[in-house]
Amino acid sequence: MDSADATVEGAPDHSDDRMVDSVLEWTRAECERLDRDDPLSVHRLQFSLPPGLIYLDGNSLGPLPAGTAARIATAVSQEWGEGLIGSWNSAGWIGLPQRVGAKIAALVGAHDDEVVAADSTSVNLFKVLAAALQLRPDRRVILSERGNFPTDLYIAQGLIGMLGKGYRLELAEREDLERLLSPEELGLDVAVAMLTQVDYRDGSRLDMARVTAQVHEAGGVVVWDLAHSAGAFPVALNAAKADFAVGCGYKYLNGGPGAPAFLYVAREHQSRLHQPLSGWMGHAHPFDFAQEYAPEPGISRYLCGTPPVLALTALDEGLDTVLAAQPHGGLAALEAKAARLTECFIDLVEDGCSEYGMTLVTPREAQRRGNQVSFAMEAGDQAYAVVQALIARGVVGDFRAPNILRFGFAPLYLRLVDAWDAAEHVAEVLQTREWDQPRFLRRHAVT
Amino acid sequence: MDSADATVEGAPDHSDDRMVDSVLEWTRAECERLDRDDPLSVHRLQFSLPPGLIYLDGNSLGPLPAGTAARIATAVSQEWGEGLIGSWNSAGWIGLPQRVGAKIAALVGAHDDEVVAADSTSVNLFKVLAAALQLRPDRRVILSERGNFPTDLYIAQGLIGMLGKGYRLELAEREDLERLLSPEELGLDVAVAMLTQVDYRDGSRLDMARVTAQVHEAGGVVVWDLAHSAGAFPVALNAAKADFAVGCGYKYLNGGPGAPAFLYVAREHQSRLHQPLSGWMGHAHPFDFAQEYAPEPGISRYLCGTPPVLALTALDEGLDTVLAAQPHGGLAALEAKAARLTECFIDLVEDGCSEYGMTLVTPREAQRRGNQVSFAMEAGDQAYAVVQALIARGVVGDFRAPNILRFGFAPLYLRLVDAWDAAEHVAEVLQTREWDQPRFLRRHAVT
Repeated sequence: MDSADATVEGAPDHSDDRMVDSVLEWTRAECERLDRDDPLSVHRLQFSLPPGLIYLDGNSLGPLPAGTAARIATAVSQEWGEGLIGSWNSAGWIGLPQRVGAKIAALVGAHDDEVVAADSTSVNLFKVLAAALQLRPDRRVILSERGNFPTDLYIAQGLIGMLGKGYRLELAEREDLERLLSPEELGLDVAVAMLTQVDYRDGSRLDMARVTAQVHEAGGVVVWDLAHSAGAFPVALNAAKADFAVGCGYKYLNGGPGAPAFLYVAREHQSRLHQPLSGWMGHAHPFDFAQEYAPEPGISRYLCGTPPVLALTALDEGLDTVLAAQPHGGLAALEAKAARLTECFIDLVEDGCSEYGMTLVTPREAQRRGNQVSFAMEAGDQAYAVVQALIARGVVGDFRAPNILRFGFAPLYLRLVDAWDAAEHVAEVLQTREWDQPRFLRRHAVT
Repeated sequence: MDSADATVEGAPDHSDDRMVDSVLEWTRAECERLDRDDPLSVHRLQFSLPPGLIYLDGNSLGPLPAGTAARIATAVSQEWGEGLIGSWNSAGWIGLPQRVGAKIAALVGAHDDEVVAADSTSVNLFKVLAAALQLRPDRRVILSERGNFPTDLYIAQGLIGMLGKGYRLELAEREDLERLLSPEELGLDVAVAMLTQVDYRDGSRLDMARVTAQVHEAGGVVVWDLAHSAGAFPVALNAAKADFAVGCGYKYLNGGPGAPAFLYVAREHQSRLHQPLSGWMGHAHPFDFAQEYAPEPGISRYLCGTPPVLALTALDEGLDTVLAAQPHGGLAALEAKAARLTECFIDLVEDGCSEYGMTLVTPREAQRRGNQVSFAMEAGDQAYAVVQALIARGVVGDFRAPNILRFGFAPLYLRLVDAWDAAEHVAEVLQTREWDQPRFLRRHAVT
């Protein structure tokens, strides 16, 4: 793609409240200039990205940090190979869930002792949902969103199926949440609101402080799913008085495929609640081998089985890539950069592709979206084929049923020129109908 | 330890039913000869063992297979680093739980489609216990052993706490299980017997076929914990008509610290039962992103969250070390070798150390034990210190509260000379009271 000097005709006039200069028209040269001046640009060097690839899928699987291969090699060959069983102590394996958890805590506005890394997001959600319901024993509703990520809904369904006793899952549209929390609607029976801050399809972001306050006002507690939040922008769990949260290690935390997940329980709730996956790592004294479960007083009671050492090691290294941005303004600076990246991409795609039936479904206001831009196409099959054609060009986004093209803009390693080039690829694929080939047709979609 | 020509005085006269020649006295030279003639000896080369170390703790953490570092490096740098999100399909990540499960199935006497690798042993136990109880809705007892590995008991306690409805955990001594299954005792109310085949402390082994038949006779179903069985000797789940099982990936399967665990559900039960950790990977069509959970018909419904790819890759490599023994007689040959290793060690330690208050707690009959030998000492503090003194000498066994010295003999990589040398080290540590030093005293014991 040789387009260093190309300009986008008819680029919109950016008003002052946008994150780029008001008179700026997006040109590739201007993107390059902004990239050069970007103090965060150095962080791209932390990743081992395939040359020439524009990777807009870090919201599904973060890329490989440059240090992970060596870090895992050390854990494998030295800690495991040479240290063997002794490494549970000498290499500190036994404390990995808490140490890695403390690093995550720093990214989600929590105390060190409020987060552990363990299990999968789904398993962690089961634990904290079960615990959360104990705080409101007289209420029976888990309120969630129709569009929540399916595994969250499935886990709630599984938990409810087990509990019986009239528990039920009520699903609402995002815009209906506040109304449903009123006393006249479900408010008086909502025990737990189980909400994902950033929607996995449209990328819209909920105001955590505001929604948490609404749920509390209605007498419920909140479980936040931070899958698309943690590591993407500042999350302030404590400041929002959030009760519980879970999140994913393999998206913006760059922990590797199927990395361990995390969970957060506010200090005030930790020791009052029981979580049913009461494995030995949650015991107050696991190596006493007592017959009776006696939970550790704090966050460690939310652990279950033996920690996955190699996977936690990779996650630990991934977290360091995000924490390394702290001297450059940390997540607040990353959020501002992501706003600019997504703004640029939205402007260019809207300008260049609207005649092809691509409709922005992500909110235009930067504060109302995560680091992701989604467009809907009228035909799902076409959306799928366009994503495949883009991947063939080296622009990796993804497709989400039924008709969504999803592009993630992880600000740690993406540049404005990537957004610019990606938008040009999208336009070219549509203009030339390059997508309309048998090899891009939908077969068995995974990811 | 220069003892190539030493003999053990007063070595017992081995009767014909033992696994060594009846007239054999254990000498190091004879051990060396037997090792040379052992067709399984080549398998030691599959491991990256620290030179000079006698590693008798593979029943806690299997050692590093020689191929694992390169295998993980490929998964990290190529599959993740270059293939990125596309590797879910192109590298087959999405099918790892089933593919790794099928390899495990071959080791535990199950069909390929009856085992998946996932989560931890504790989490998997929660799933299969919850499912198993559905088979006997009118019964309320989970029968287990007082000496079962604690996390198994804790998980049952957590599940029961959640279910309420009069469910209870009854604990028995091993020798009382059969009596308690009678109609006059608990038999009429036992829904599930939750049993660990090889006891983690004394190494005693239950006859799976016999006990399963007894439980079935009493109208219950069985959940077997194979933590110390899988990869150690032939397990025949199908032949025993076993209902459910769980097991550990990081012991005899050499999958690495905190490796994913596995679970087994007999075909006949799979589709009839619901497991409450109903995450998206157990859905019939996870990538349809439907709102309602609809379980996959077969074993995959027992999956929950996103598969831990790097950890499953290491486990896959570990399994290959065990499967590689198939041309040399497989697990049956490994079992015979382990019987000889443990026999040798028992004979030598009993002969050389009985005056120091070490009492064998592992059954003498090889068929009644796993690949492990445990001795009790009168004083737990002394047992702990002896284990530490042995570790300082490069003989790695472990201590289990209150007073057990535990030595695992993984036949894939251990030699008779290792058993011989280890026994001599034990004798020397006791004879010289080398253990009685401040540096070997108990501090904070982990592992």
